[in-house]
Amino acid sequence: MISFLIIGHTASTDASFSLNDLPGAGGRMDLLCRAIGSSLFLSHGIRQNITCDILLLGQPHPGRIIRFSGNEIRNLSPDERNIASFIKKGLAIPAGKKFREAGPGLSCRTGTLADMLTEQKYAVLDESGIDIRKVPDEDLPKNFLLSDNQNFSDDEKNCTAHLPCFSLGPAIVHADHAITLLLNEIDRRESGWI
Amino acid sequence: MISFLIIGHTASTDASFSLNDLPGAGGRMDLLCRAIGSSLFLSHGIRQNITCDILLLGQPHPGRIIRFSGNEIRNLSPDERNIASFIKKGLAIPAGKKFREAGPGLSCRTGTLADMLTEQKYAVLDESGIDIRKVPDEDLPKNFLLSDNQNFSDDEKNCTAHLPCFSLGPAIVHADHAITLLLNEIDRRESGWI
Repeated sequence: MISFLIIGHTASTDASFSLNDLPGAGGRMDLLCRAIGSSLFLSHGIRQNITCDILLLGQPHPGRIIRFSGNEIRNLSPDERNIASFIKKGLAIPAGKKFREAGPGLSCRTGTLADMLTEQKYAVLDESGIDIRKVPDEDLPKNFLLSDNQNFSDDEKNCTAHLPCFSLGPAIVHADHAITLLLNEIDRRESGWI
Repeated sequence: MISFLIIGHTASTDASFSLNDLPGAGGRMDLLCRAIGSSLFLSHGIRQNITCDILLLGQPHPGRIIRFSGNEIRNLSPDERNIASFIKKGLAIPAGKKFREAGPGLSCRTGTLADMLTEQKYAVLDESGIDIRKVPDEDLPKNFLLSDNQNFSDDEKNCTAHLPCFSLGPAIVHADHAITLLLNEIDRRESGWI
């Protein structure tokens, strides 16, 4: 299993955010939707071995985590609006400290970045890291942390300073593009294309 | 300059398609929006050296081409809804056989795949091609043709059979993901990362 965790610094935690304004009222929810799409979708199917978590830090309940599980999710389409409707479903259930199911392959909990880092070992995807193509297979972890359009905050930097950090290329790209590039590198290694 | 041409086999050519239903009423317009986004957006800016054309083959006027020019486009945001609103603007102007401006960096014309192939030399991005990482710099063209979620039709295959064909990896991915992978390969070569 491979997992992603994407921080949405301004992403709404109010289940009633408008599907007609994902960047504004949703707090750049569009970006998170595309990141979920990139992590889960193949041309004609869903990647079964992926879990994609988004950490929503916007108001009114900063610190909600929504999990999409590729092997269980049903009826997800790759357009932003459809993915956002799943996020709304996740936000609509009462959230506690453990993941609670909001539907097949969709669950929600409360939590912080520090919580997630305690529970699982991550590598950071960031332009400051080592070129992913040069990382030996045995050093490539299975869990990856990304930020949205904002840089990591000082607190987040302190939390993640000890983590391995990988770069996908010379250009600074959106989180969803970084995920596509990482999965391609993993696909290639697993299929002997390198 | 690098250019993309993406065929939207069912994409609406009626400027009044609903922004609330890009996959259905728009005829998988969501997919084209993401392809435009992947071709143009960096994390904090627009790729100035990219032109992205979409060939819309849906009703009521199949054969509209909308061009997004990275060096001139203004106020474009990466969310599907915003990009779709530019496509609507492009479709709203009267179209002739030559590109006509619908706004800065946005233009529209009528045309077919055969027209485009006559005017410019393309390579096809398709899973059946040669691994892009193995293509020498001198064999890497500047113009790339992709299909949407549908395979190339028989007519399109006949038109493109003589073109070089490149694959991005072992997994069959969405058009927008293929564009991201291709641009990363070009970025790496131009920056000496390979």
